[in-house]
Amino acid sequence: MAKVGVVLSGCGVYDGSEIHEAVITLLALDRGGAEAVCMAPNVDAAVVNHLSGEESPGETRNVLVESARIARGNIRDIADVKADELDALIFPGGFGAAKNLCDFAVKGADCVAHPEVTRLVREIVAARKPLAALCIAPALISRILGDDKLAHKLTIGNDQGTADAMTRMGSEHVECSVGNFVLDPTNKLVSTPAYMLAGRIREAAEGIEKTVAELLKMI
Amino acid sequence: MAKVGVVLSGCGVYDGSEIHEAVITLLALDRGGAEAVCMAPNVDAAVVNHLSGEESPGETRNVLVESARIARGNIRDIADVKADELDALIFPGGFGAAKNLCDFAVKGADCVAHPEVTRLVREIVAARKPLAALCIAPALISRILGDDKLAHKLTIGNDQGTADAMTRMGSEHVECSVGNFVLDPTNKLVSTPAYMLAGRIREAAEGIEKTVAELLKMI
Repeated sequence: MAKVGVVLSGCGVYDGSEIHEAVITLLALDRGGAEAVCMAPNVDAAVVNHLSGEESPGETRNVLVESARIARGNIRDIADVKADELDALIFPGGFGAAKNLCDFAVKGADCVAHPEVTRLVREIVAARKPLAALCIAPALISRILGDDKLAHKLTIGNDQGTADAMTRMGSEHVECSVGNFVLDPTNKLVSTPAYMLAGRIREAAEGIEKTVAELLKMI
Repeated sequence: MAKVGVVLSGCGVYDGSEIHEAVITLLALDRGGAEAVCMAPNVDAAVVNHLSGEESPGETRNVLVESARIARGNIRDIADVKADELDALIFPGGFGAAKNLCDFAVKGADCVAHPEVTRLVREIVAARKPLAALCIAPALISRILGDDKLAHKLTIGNDQGTADAMTRMGSEHVECSVGNFVLDPTNKLVSTPAYMLAGRIREAAEGIEKTVAELLKMI
């Protein structure tokens, strides 16, 4: 059974992993016959009240502990996961990917990625194992592969500001509609806009299900 | 477009809504052509650290605010929702259904349900609108309908202790496997074991997708 790392970044679209994207990913992996290996960085992060949309002043929560909610407790510190135990890696989106796995949400093209996330992505790409990124998560991948001067293609849909930042970091950004994905066969990268464009959950699901199928096909 | 109320109870299997069950429900509703109306009670509740499985001493979180994570902010206080604006109602499971919507997790057959949850369930059943309950949530429905001396059938799978408590509260408990559901056509009730029995997400999804399809058929 293929093992696919799922990198979470908290639990909730505004300060963590986008929950729908994460669960649809887990379901698509299981239905595709793969085992999900959930992981997250062991760091504290700011909290957004998802009812008001406002940051909760002074409150922090641990990203690994909150991600465990999505994983039903079955999760590991990303620092303990090596690429040689995985067949592929996937990043759901949500602001957590741009706030907790890197600081793209604040710094844009000047962002820095979490060192353990950087390490694992580099290991996966160096081992020629496939990698998928949903929603805003391709901006994180752009940072890491751009720093490595690796020519590659990714999509976050059609948001011009985000696409421009990714171009500055070193990606070729390819526009993509919500129900589809962009494949970079050379680097075994697959990406889909998900909630960067989705107006409803079934739209996000369509692109994510296709992305996971493509990811598993490349193993 | 049919409107289906989705009653959430927090965000995480051990102290709130089971996240996979809630998201699979939202996706099945959207794919079935129905609009989800997410709601939760505006109450504080104890917090469980989902990494350690232990209660987080002294910490509380608001059930409506945490449920908003699953609903991407699009959620209402259940106290403001009336049955006449809904075509059906569904309860995902998770310990939140047995801790925050009632206190079945602590009191068993002597539990009491949240008054606004009780009111809305009574309104839905009185209006002959269909109602679905997943996982442990049928124990909550058992409390409410049992108190009303309404003969009815529900399932939580095959857990004998829970089934016995539901029998004492006034339900006829019907055993059910994870990929199926139990239908009470007289009262338009449908229930499925989900993670009371599921060993993996695709097993939970199979029963939930069938349950939502049956719920929508009864509208």
